[in-house]
Amino acid sequence: MITARALPGLPEVRRGDDLAALLAGARAQLGPGPGFAPGEVLVLAHKVVSKAEGRTVDLATVEPSARAVELAREMDKDPRHVEVVLRESAEVVRAEHNVIISRTRHGFVCANAGVDASNAASPDELILLPEDPDASARALRAALPGHPAVLIADSFGRAWRHGQCDVAVGIAGFAPLEDWRGRTDAHGRELRATWIATADQAAAAADLARGGKDAGEPAVVLTGLERHVTVEDGPGVQALVRSRAEDLFG
Amino acid sequence: MITARALPGLPEVRRGDDLAALLAGARAQLGPGPGFAPGEVLVLAHKVVSKAEGRTVDLATVEPSARAVELAREMDKDPRHVEVVLRESAEVVRAEHNVIISRTRHGFVCANAGVDASNAASPDELILLPEDPDASARALRAALPGHPAVLIADSFGRAWRHGQCDVAVGIAGFAPLEDWRGRTDAHGRELRATWIATADQAAAAADLARGGKDAGEPAVVLTGLERHVTVEDGPGVQALVRSRAEDLFG
Repeated sequence: MITARALPGLPEVRRGDDLAALLAGARAQLGPGPGFAPGEVLVLAHKVVSKAEGRTVDLATVEPSARAVELAREMDKDPRHVEVVLRESAEVVRAEHNVIISRTRHGFVCANAGVDASNAASPDELILLPEDPDASARALRAALPGHPAVLIADSFGRAWRHGQCDVAVGIAGFAPLEDWRGRTDAHGRELRATWIATADQAAAAADLARGGKDAGEPAVVLTGLERHVTVEDGPGVQALVRSRAEDLFG
Repeated sequence: MITARALPGLPEVRRGDDLAALLAGARAQLGPGPGFAPGEVLVLAHKVVSKAEGRTVDLATVEPSARAVELAREMDKDPRHVEVVLRESAEVVRAEHNVIISRTRHGFVCANAGVDASNAASPDELILLPEDPDASARALRAALPGHPAVLIADSFGRAWRHGQCDVAVGIAGFAPLEDWRGRTDAHGRELRATWIATADQAAAAADLARGGKDAGEPAVVLTGLERHVTVEDGPGVQALVRSRAEDLFG
């Protein structure tokens, strides 16, 4: 059985806060025992990690480039916001329907390069993805009592389906993929193209356990996923990123 | 708290089997009580539904078209298998890297139009997606004791990320999307582009609770998702399908 529970009572996180200490305190409230069990998986909304790391931008400090001004005019957006999106983008994949889809420096393809204003501390603050989300996940895992696996998650849209699903953007101690290719089914027949993005499914499961986008519940504990938890921190999220040559846009 | 549990003891399902009766029997083994609780969500791997409905094809009966023969030669596949994929496709989106990505008649964009040989009853049998997966989900919901929400799931690849995640391909009694657009965050700021594909996240969560692709556990019960369960069967999976005009391929 899998369980997913949101951690209660996390305060608003600010730059420089000891996030691991805050998470350990919240986990202790849930019980039993003072810390995380080693087979547990802690899934964190990226915003809480970015805030603690100071990965935010004050719009008042941003000078938009000519390209940002032009794109912003086309899309009826704040040019300073577009400038921040462009700075976070390695490549703009598409800018239409009032959304910029870009490939971030990490290789993620997502709306607005992961730059978001919601749940920011002030109206002029934008929240970026962590600089190196795998490193953030590894540091949290090392600092947390019991050293659970740590996933950092964000909500990404999909090319062919409406709505967003949470996916992993940083991973420590969790196998990102489960590879059944070349293995056999219950009838002994070879399974084809069966390569499960377990970390993304775990991120999605965790999001379901949150009260909602207004509930202030950035941290969720998953149990029952011990077979995917690893002693080593492992390859991290890069294992999930398709290179440009491999993407399905052709 | 969310929980996800695989139903134990389901036999191999064959064409014409009373799938609802088999599922009710398996649910009774899990207890407490003889049936499903109304707020529960039953997630079924599509293959078990397709098998019960006879949505399978015997390769020995398939005469490949010239186009199937040509594609099969390019991709080193069985031309009869390719023929079945083409018959299930409204449009081939891409045929490269040894995989055919197509848009099915339901509007799903996925590998091989959802046609699969693994977990089939014989080496010559291919399993198709249900003809009308929403109708299949509605019929099962009506027939099951306690009338849980029913999701039918399949594993789909993603354009920009490795690996597959389970998504919903048929839905009855579950809100496919949760719309936070225009609503406010914990600070009273408007949430932007926050439109959660809840049904797809539930399908992903359920897949994590399976023992594995060789475990023969096609049915998973989710609890804790009562706020997404609806009395009416609702709009079904079409709410999740992007039209061609809206897709992110441009």
